[in-house]
Amino acid sequence: MWKSIRTDLAMEAREMAQEQKQGEIPGVRVENIMPAEDIVVTRVEVVSRLGEENIGKPVGNYITLEAPEIRNRNPEYEEQLKQQLAAEIRKLVQLNDDSVILVVGLGNWNVTPDAVGPKVVDKVLVTRHVFEFVPDQVDDRMRRICAVAPGVLGITGIETGEIVKGIVEKVKPDLVIAIDALASRKTERIGSTIQIADTGINPGSGIGNKRMGLNRETLGVPTLAIGVPTVVYAQTIGRDALEMLIKEFSGQADPHSKFYNMLQALDEQHLNSLVAEVLTEGLGDLVVTPKEVDLLIDDAAGIIADGINLAIHNGLSMEDVNRYLH
Amino acid sequence: MWKSIRTDLAMEAREMAQEQKQGEIPGVRVENIMPAEDIVVTRVEVVSRLGEENIGKPVGNYITLEAPEIRNRNPEYEEQLKQQLAAEIRKLVQLNDDSVILVVGLGNWNVTPDAVGPKVVDKVLVTRHVFEFVPDQVDDRMRRICAVAPGVLGITGIETGEIVKGIVEKVKPDLVIAIDALASRKTERIGSTIQIADTGINPGSGIGNKRMGLNRETLGVPTLAIGVPTVVYAQTIGRDALEMLIKEFSGQADPHSKFYNMLQALDEQHLNSLVAEVLTEGLGDLVVTPKEVDLLIDDAAGIIADGINLAIHNGLSMEDVNRYLH
Amino acid sequence: MWKSIRTDLAMEAREMAQEQKQGEIPGVRVENIMPAEDIVVTRVEVVSRLGEENIGKPVGNYITLEAPEIRNRNPEYEEQLKQQLAAEIRKLVQLNDDSVILVVGLGNWNVTPDAVGPKVVDKVLVTRHVFEFVPDQVDDRMRRICAVAPGVLGITGIETGEIVKGIVEKVKPDLVIAIDALASRKTERIGSTIQIADTGINPGSGIGNKRMGLNRETLGVPTLAIGVPTVVYAQTIGRDALEMLIKEFSGQADPHSKFYNMLQALDEQHLNSLVAEVLTEGLGDLVVTPKEVDLLIDDAAGIIADGINLAIHNGLSMEDVNRYLH
Amino acid sequence: MWKSIRTDLAMEAREMAQEQKQGEIPGVRVENIMPAEDIVVTRVEVVSRLGEENIGKPVGNYITLEAPEIRNRNPEYEEQLKQQLAAEIRKLVQLNDDSVILVVGLGNWNVTPDAVGPKVVDKVLVTRHVFEFVPDQVDDRMRRICAVAPGVLGITGIETGEIVKGIVEKVKPDLVIAIDALASRKTERIGSTIQIADTGINPGSGIGNKRMGLNRETLGVPTLAIGVPTVVYAQTIGRDALEMLIKEFSGQADPHSKFYNMLQALDEQHLNSLVAEVLTEGLGDLVVTPKEVDLLIDDAAGIIADGINLAIHNGLSMEDVNRYLH
Repeated sequence: MWKSIRTDLAMEAREMAQEQKQGEIPGVRVENIMPAEDIVVTRVEVVSRLGEENIGKPVGNYITLEAPEIRNRNPEYEEQLKQQLAAEIRKLVQLNDDSVILVVGLGNWNVTPDAVGPKVVDKVLVTRHVFEFVPDQVDDRMRRICAVAPGVLGITGIETGEIVKGIVEKVKPDLVIAIDALASRKTERIGSTIQIADTGINPGSGIGNKRMGLNRETLGVPTLAIGVPTVVYAQTIGRDALEMLIKEFSGQADPHSKFYNMLQALDEQHLNSLVAEVLTEGLGDLVVTPKEVDLLIDDAAGIIADGINLAIHNGLSMEDVNRYLH
Repeated sequence: MWKSIRTDLAMEAREMAQEQKQGEIPGVRVENIMPAEDIVVTRVEVVSRLGEENIGKPVGNYITLEAPEIRNRNPEYEEQLKQQLAAEIRKLVQLNDDSVILVVGLGNWNVTPDAVGPKVVDKVLVTRHVFEFVPDQVDDRMRRICAVAPGVLGITGIETGEIVKGIVEKVKPDLVIAIDALASRKTERIGSTIQIADTGINPGSGIGNKRMGLNRETLGVPTLAIGVPTVVYAQTIGRDALEMLIKEFSGQADPHSKFYNMLQALDEQHLNSLVAEVLTEGLGDLVVTPKEVDLLIDDAAGIIADGINLAIHNGLSMEDVNRYLH
Repeated sequence: MWKSIRTDLAMEAREMAQEQKQGEIPGVRVENIMPAEDIVVTRVEVVSRLGEENIGKPVGNYITLEAPEIRNRNPEYEEQLKQQLAAEIRKLVQLNDDSVILVVGLGNWNVTPDAVGPKVVDKVLVTRHVFEFVPDQVDDRMRRICAVAPGVLGITGIETGEIVKGIVEKVKPDLVIAIDALASRKTERIGSTIQIADTGINPGSGIGNKRMGLNRETLGVPTLAIGVPTVVYAQTIGRDALEMLIKEFSGQADPHSKFYNMLQALDEQHLNSLVAEVLTEGLGDLVVTPKEVDLLIDDAAGIIADGINLAIHNGLSMEDVNRYLH
Repeated sequence: MWKSIRTDLAMEAREMAQEQKQGEIPGVRVENIMPAEDIVVTRVEVVSRLGEENIGKPVGNYITLEAPEIRNRNPEYEEQLKQQLAAEIRKLVQLNDDSVILVVGLGNWNVTPDAVGPKVVDKVLVTRHVFEFVPDQVDDRMRRICAVAPGVLGITGIETGEIVKGIVEKVKPDLVIAIDALASRKTERIGSTIQIADTGINPGSGIGNKRMGLNRETLGVPTLAIGVPTVVYAQTIGRDALEMLIKEFSGQADPHSKFYNMLQALDEQHLNSLVAEVLTEGLGDLVVTPKEVDLLIDDAAGIIADGINLAIHNGLSMEDVNRYLH
C-alpha cells in the first residue's frame, strides 16, 4: 500500500515490500552483519527482474552501513566506520595498480542537503595529476584518482550526464564513483547511513531530479554509487502519521464494522491527496531535516571521502591520507 | 484542540483559537487590509490578559505582512513590500532626530534556517559610528543605527539576553529592534511572511530555545521584534495530516455512531503521542523547509533590512540606501 | 628592461614595451575612447608576429574597460558599464538566433582572488536547458547559454583544458567565453578593469598556472576570454619600488659619473635576484590585494555576468535579466 | 632608520631597534629557547618606560612561537605546538577552579585576513553555559569558558571596546583573552607565528584600526592578547626592496664618494614618499598575502583555539577536547 513513499535506499525499499507481503521477497537476497559495535551492514542483492519489480531497484548489489553513533564524533568510531566502508567498496570493484578512478560529486553546492557530492570531491585525495606531472612525488601505494563536481542542470544548463560523459571520454577512467545525496523514509537515517551500489545512479534517484543515469550503460565503465540520506520528504512524514493513525484505529475497531471497512478502503491516492492538502506546493519539494543538517553533511562527506581514500589508495593509513591531503 | 501546534505568528495563534471557538476571541482585536496587490497586512492586537490567555501571546500589537509573490523576485513588488514594512514599523515606534536604534540579529549563523537575524545585521545601513567619528559625512536624513549579532548560548556560553543587556547599557539606545527566525504552522508562509511585534522577544519564542526575553522589561527600552518564518516543525505536518484524516472520517460517519464518538474522543494527548511515535527523536528538533531555504532567507533578510533602513532613516530612498550601503 | 613584470593585460604589456622603446610598437595598434564619464576603453590589436614578440601577446584583439568608479557602487554607473561591456563583446563575436554559448568559469572557488570565474558562472542567465526541456518558457530574445566551472588541476587531478574539451565535444557550442582572474601590474586596476580578448586563454596566463590553452586551436570553436585583475604580484611591487629608486638616483647623478654608469648597468637579472631576496619563497606566489578583495571580486563578477547576459541575450534589459535570474 | 615599518610583533620591533642600535636595547630583555624541533620560542620582556620607547610596545611580556613547519600539517607537530602554546599561556595567567574566562575574537569575519579572531571563537570549547544549566555534565577538569566575536566598528557602528566592556560587566570574567590578526614585517611569518602578550590589545595595533584598547586598564580584568600575523603591508615590501638596493649599492661604493654620502643621506621621509608614489592609495590598505591565506588562517585558528583549550581546561587532553567539541 505504501509503495509511493520515496526512498533511495534499497534496504528500505525491501523493508517496505516485506511489510506488505509479510514474507520473503522473491528475487531479492538480504544479509545482515554487525562488523563492529554500533555499525550494521546490510547487503541487499537484487538477483532478477522479479526482484527489480518487487522493490523498484535494478539488478545489482546494494550495501548499507548504518552508523547511528556517527553523531557523537568519536574519532575511533569514525575510523572504524571508514575502514568498514573501504572494505565494502573494495568488495564491489576490481582495480589494478594502473587503474584510473573518477569520483563524481553530484548535486548542488548552494543547497545544503544536496551538497554532499561536491563536499566529498573536496575531501578526496586527488592524485592523477601527481602521476602525470610530478611522478617522483608519487607514493607507491597511491592509485590515480581524479574528481569533479559537475553541478546541476539548473546551474549549468547541461544535463549532468552529458558533462560526465564528456569528461569520461577524455579521462578514460577504469571506474567511476558517483556520490549523491539521498532521500530516506526515516529521519534517524539522515547523515548516519551510507549506501554503496554497483548499479550506479539511475534516472529519478537522488534528491535532485536526475533525468539521465550514470551507470555502466550510459558511461561505458563500471560505475559505483555512494550516497547518504540527507532528507526525508515531508510527504513521507505525513504518510507515516496517517498510517500510524489508521493502524491505531484498526486495532480498536470491530473487524465486521462499517468503520473497519472504511479504514481498509482508504487507498493510496486518497491518502496522498490528504497529505497534499497539508503540504502546499509552490515552494519546491518540502523536506524534513534536522536543523543541524549542515554539520551532519560535513561529517558524512568526510567519512565517505576517507572511505574512498582508504579503499582506492592501496594501503595508505588514515595518517598518510591526512598528511597527503594538505 | 490543536493548541499545542507550535507557531510564533500571533495571526496563526488567533486563527487556531478561532477554529476551536468558532467565533470572536475575547481580548483580541484583528484587522485586515490589502495595501497593494498580493500584500496582505493583518494587525492583531491583544488588548487584555484574557486575550493573552486565549492566544498565548502577551498584550501588544502584532502586525503580519503576507507577501507570497516575494518568490518571484520582482523588483517593483519587493520595493512596495519594503515601503509597506517601513510604514508599519513607523506606526509602532516613536523616534526623534537624535534617537539611537540598536538592531539585534538573533540566531545562529551556522544553521541556515536560524541565520536570518545575523543576515539582517549584515544588510542594515549602520551609521552610529559615522555620527561619532566623521560627522561631516552624515546625511541629514540619517538616524543613528548600530547593529550586533550576539550569537547563541551554545556558541558563546552566555545567555543572549545578558550580552544584549550589557551592550544596551553601554550604547543606551532609544529603541531596540530584535530580528529572529520564527516557526509557522503553514509551509507556504516560509520566507514570505513578516511579523512585527511591539512586545519584543519572549522566552521560548523563535526557532532556537531562548530562555530570557528581550523586551521593555528586561532591557529597559522599547523593543520591537521583527521575524520571518523559516521552518514548520515536522510535528505540525504530522498533526495536520491527522487532523485532515479525522475531519474526513467525521464527515462520512453517522453522528450517532460509536465511530463518530471515537473520533471526537481522540484528545490532544493521544494525538501528540501518535505524532511522537512517528517522528523519532534524537536528531534535535526536526523541521520542514523547502530545499531552497538558503535563498528564501537571503531574500527575506534583505527585505527586512531595507524595511528598517527606510523606516528609521528619515526620508532616504532605496537608491540612497544602496549607495550608502557600499 | 622591465619585461619580466607579470601582467595579463595587453594594454599594460604594450605600455611597458613603449616605456622601453619610447615610441610606437611595430605590429601593435592601439585606440582609446571614453564612451562615458569615468569609463575608458582601450582597444589593442596585435596585428603581426612582430607585434606578438614585442608585447608577448598572441595576434588578436584585446579590449580593456577601465572603470575606477566601480568602487562607489553607483547603480547607474554600473549599468552604463555593463552596457558598454556588452557592446564590446558583441563587436568580437558573431552569433545567430540558434547559437549555443558555453561560459567557462576558470579558477579555484576556494581561493578568493582566483574565484572570479566560478562567481560569474553563478550569475549568468543560463537558458540552454529551458530551450530543451520547457521550450514554451523561452523568451524570444534569449539565446542558449550554458555554463560550467571546471575547477583547477590541484582539485580535480585533470587538466582544465581536458575537462572543457570533453564538455565542448558533447555540447557543441558555437562560442566559448572563458572567464579568468588576471594579474595586473598596477594595484589600482584590481577589480576595476575588465579585459576582453578574442584570442582565448593561453598557457601561462591567468593567476593560476594554466598549462593548456583554451582557444580556437585547442577547442575547435571561437573562444573569447574575459578577465579582471584581482592581484598584483608582490614581486611587481618590489620591482616598481626599485625602479623608482633608480630613477630618483639617476636624476640626481652626474651622467658622466661612475655612479650613473653603475645604475645603468643594473640589469634585469640583478634586480630580480634582489627582489627574490626580499620576498621569501615558500608561501606560494605572494600577491598584493586590498583587504576588501572579496567584495571587489563579487562586484566585478556581477558586472561581467551581466555584460554577458546583455550581449548574448538579444535585447533583454537589465530588468528582464534580473527577473529571469530568480 | 626603518622604524616606520608596521609590525605588531614585539620580537620584530626589537630586532628592528637592534639593527639600528647595533647592540642591546635598554629596557628590553630577550630570551630564546627551542623546546622542540622546528619550534622557536622568543620571550621579550619590556621592563621599563625606556624599553617602551625603544621598541614602541608597552611594558609587559611578549612571547612568540615560531613554527615554520605548521604548513606541512603534521599532526604530531601540531600537537606539540598546541601543548607548547598552552604551556606559555599558563605562565602568563593565574586561575583557580572557579575562574571564568572570556575569549574575545576580534576582527571582521567577512575579510579573510582579519577573520582569525572569530574563527578561534568558533573552535574554543565553550563551557560556561554547561556549568550554569547542566552542571551534571561538567567534567571536573573543565573551567568556565565563554566566547564572543563582537565584530568591527564598520559593521556594528559601535566601538569594539564598548561592546566588550558591556559584556565584561555582565559576565564578570577573571581573565579576558583577546584574539587578533596581526601584521608582520616578514612574509614567511604569515600563519606560522603566534604572539602572546600580557599587555592586552592597545590602540592602533592589529590589522584593523582599533581606536580603543582592550587591556587591564580599560576592562578592569587581566587581559591576554593572542595574535597571528596574517598580512605584511605592501609598503613593508616596498621598503624592504629599497633597503636591499641601498645596502647593495653601499657595499659597492667608495665610502669617500659623493654617491656613498647620497645613499646615507636618504632619510626616512624620503623613502616613505618614494614608497607612497609606488603604492597607489585608494584601495584601502594594501596587504601582501599568500593566495592560500584562507587555509593558513584556518590552521592557525585551530592551533590557537586548542592552545587555549589545553591551557584553560585543567588537564583535558586533545582527545578529550575533540570529543567535547562535538
